[in-house]
Amino acid sequence: MNDHTYRVTEIVGTSPEGVDQAIHNGIERASATLRGLDWFEVTQIRGHLENGEIAHYQVGMKVGFRLEETS
Amino acid sequence: MNDHTYRVTEIVGTSPEGVDQAIHNGIERASATLRGLDWFEVTQIRGHLENGEIAHYQVGMKVGFRLEETS
Amino acid sequence: MNDHTYRVTEIVGTSPEGVDQAIHNGIERASATLRGLDWFEVTQIRGHLENGEIAHYQVGMKVGFRLEETS
Amino acid sequence: MNDHTYRVTEIVGTSPEGVDQAIHNGIERASATLRGLDWFEVTQIRGHLENGEIAHYQVGMKVGFRLEETS
Amino acid sequence: MNDHTYRVTEIVGTSPEGVDQAIHNGIERASATLRGLDWFEVTQIRGHLENGEIAHYQVGMKVGFRLEETS
Amino acid sequence: MNDHTYRVTEIVGTSPEGVDQAIHNGIERASATLRGLDWFEVTQIRGHLENGEIAHYQVGMKVGFRLEETS
Amino acid sequence: MNDHTYRVTEIVGTSPEGVDQAIHNGIERASATLRGLDWFEVTQIRGHLENGEIAHYQVGMKVGFRLEETS
Amino acid sequence: MNDHTYRVTEIVGTSPEGVDQAIHNGIERASATLRGLDWFEVTQIRGHLENGEIAHYQVGMKVGFRLEETS
Amino acid sequence: MNDHTYRVTEIVGTSPEGVDQAIHNGIERASATLRGLDWFEVTQIRGHLENGEIAHYQVGMKVGFRLEETS
Amino acid sequence: MNDHTYRVTEIVGTSPEGVDQAIHNGIERASATLRGLDWFEVTQIRGHLENGEIAHYQVGMKVGFRLEETS
Amino acid sequence: MNDHTYRVTEIVGTSPEGVDQAIHNGIERASATLRGLDWFEVTQIRGHLENGEIAHYQVGMKVGFRLEETS
Amino acid sequence: MNDHTYRVTEIVGTSPEGVDQAIHNGIERASATLRGLDWFEVTQIRGHLENGEIAHYQVGMKVGFRLEETS
Repeated sequence: MNDHTYRVTEIVGTSPEGVDQAIHNGIERASATLRGLDWFEVTQIRGHLENGEIAHYQVGMKVGFRLEETS
Repeated sequence: MNDHTYRVTEIVGTSPEGVDQAIHNGIERASATLRGLDWFEVTQIRGHLENGEIAHYQVGMKVGFRLEETS
Repeated sequence: MNDHTYRVTEIVGTSPEGVDQAIHNGIERASATLRGLDWFEVTQIRGHLENGEIAHYQVGMKVGFRLEETS
Repeated sequence: MNDHTYRVTEIVGTSPEGVDQAIHNGIERASATLRGLDWFEVTQIRGHLENGEIAHYQVGMKVGFRLEETS
Repeated sequence: MNDHTYRVTEIVGTSPEGVDQAIHNGIERASATLRGLDWFEVTQIRGHLENGEIAHYQVGMKVGFRLEETS
Repeated sequence: MNDHTYRVTEIVGTSPEGVDQAIHNGIERASATLRGLDWFEVTQIRGHLENGEIAHYQVGMKVGFRLEETS
Repeated sequence: MNDHTYRVTEIVGTSPEGVDQAIHNGIERASATLRGLDWFEVTQIRGHLENGEIAHYQVGMKVGFRLEETS
Repeated sequence: MNDHTYRVTEIVGTSPEGVDQAIHNGIERASATLRGLDWFEVTQIRGHLENGEIAHYQVGMKVGFRLEETS
Repeated sequence: MNDHTYRVTEIVGTSPEGVDQAIHNGIERASATLRGLDWFEVTQIRGHLENGEIAHYQVGMKVGFRLEETS
Repeated sequence: MNDHTYRVTEIVGTSPEGVDQAIHNGIERASATLRGLDWFEVTQIRGHLENGEIAHYQVGMKVGFRLEETS
Repeated sequence: MNDHTYRVTEIVGTSPEGVDQAIHNGIERASATLRGLDWFEVTQIRGHLENGEIAHYQVGMKVGFRLEETS
Repeated sequence: MNDHTYRVTEIVGTSPEGVDQAIHNGIERASATLRGLDWFEVTQIRGHLENGEIAHYQVGMKVGFRLEETS
């Protein structure tokens, strides 16, 4: 059995609805192009304001995924 | 066109319901007295406990807004 | 009247539903064995991914509670 | 009952005597112009030296106070 | 001779008088139930304000103590 | 002689030219409405990109100024 | 199936031999009294020097373990 | 309209001339292979010294860009 | 001569043996697909525990490598 | 007039009495061998415990002093 | 060939002109008394304000230099 | 008995072999010129890569030593 190596990529998911949905949207987009997703960690919660209201939540995340073996 | 300067104020929004609602309440209160709100950034998520349950979520935020030109 | 001392313990609450629910679950479990819970502070928001989707939100929290007097 | 919002302002209190007195002086000055002061948190302890001795302790603090309702 | 292991617990000591006294009160309470106390490290200095004055200093501390051997 | 108290406000200065100019612009705007400016400290250097080029440098700063005595 | 809650305890493992051995010694001692150990995270690597040589490596760690259900 | 996801990549731009030029060089190189660049944030300012003089400024930056939709 | 730009990628190397070996395994895997590797910096040392013993050391690293010129 | 350069040295002052006295003792010792002391900044407040009581407060400080011109 | 050891000293360079010049002035002063300077890292960018304008930029830096062999 | 003051110096030890050996080499070099070494604390673990392999581990450390009395 091998000692796996993981890569960590950083993304920002966004949503007008809230923190959970912004996380969900970011993970969904990441899973469209990356395989082996294993964990995420929130690094920042921000948002954009327009006319005194929250237009978008922006949640920064590190996302870890397992690298495939090279042989 | 001018190089805008922004001011950053720090607030704590609260809610018994959850993190999103505490953010919303804080922004709503800030927009009652400040114009030109542009972004927020969460700095802390805390809460007050009573009788073993969450009485209030308390979300610290930095809120940025554009200063008007002085002429 | 006494000068109370508080103890701070660190837990990780989990939930497949979202951040608020993970906080709620962790606090509920802590209140099953600790009395005098007073506040919590989120230290980390992570999650476990399976098949490109969020399997569990994991929210790290410090939880403070008042120590009883020793006499 | 309302969900209060708090504002956090940052000050530096000073004193030639020590840390506690610098905190005290800063809070006293803040309370002269702000109502509803609720908590403080020390962010930095510095000091100015003259002739090899401590001329002033300078204690940075965040001070939180409750915003009044707007109606 | 053994390689000792230490445990680190986190407490908050309080006092209306000042930082040193809050540290002292917290350590005194910790020593009532823990043996082998070895060091402390201040992690946070806060306080509660009432009527524009300092009601309590609250000093967060990590306290390290030596675990007894298991045999 | 009095023990002065200082207030610290946070601003973001911007400029298309560079870091020094963004600092300069922010300080100039702050000095239009605040007296007794004493020091600044850079907290963040960011920028906005358009068409692959730097449109604006954005420099976050804390700015300290001496509060006037209340009597 | 339940949403598990984890507790995080902080220890310092020591060894005259090196970092890995200090981690190993600390985990071994923790496993003597705690069940369900799940992960550790190094928070600090320090050491004690005597006569210009390393007497002990001291490795601070957070150790997470699963709390049993309460029913 | 979609909720965009952004990716954040980390680069180090270098220049013998100064901080602004090192930022500029790094962004220019990034824009040669990435589309949709949106913002940068400086994470570190270092430099290499040779013969007691600054040979290169090295500016670490996070660079955010919008991911294209997958359909 | 050119002003090189570097890219920084983040990986997690793993090993059941220890910290050095986990670093080594991660770098070896990274060098299988990246050219011009120049430096690494450890960002986190964690590990997975099974049956009270260390199953894997997990070492987070930033790895910097020189980007090739675009012409 | 010249652009002064300052050097920053790090010390730990100790005292059985309290934080202020530990700062005072450290500065007094530093001023015995260094000229041009200008400021200090507290980086850490720790202490050594013996028999459940505070044996020594240990206050880490950065101390800045002006370097003399070289001509 | 030997395994070199480096020492890291901390300085603050100043200039009325800007960040780059303050870095340059500090390095120039350091190189007057230290040999083997190898790298610097900016730790803080501050400045002194007088009459609402920037009197001096103050740039804190860690400077690393190679220690000579002892034989 | 006196209240000792300690000085903290920062070094970087290096080794092609691993983290422990880099710490050891740095401490050995420091002890060649400093007396009264008391503790060290690792601040950074980095390394230099050549041809896809680890050429040197570089371990940053703060090293504390007791200052002699001045009389």
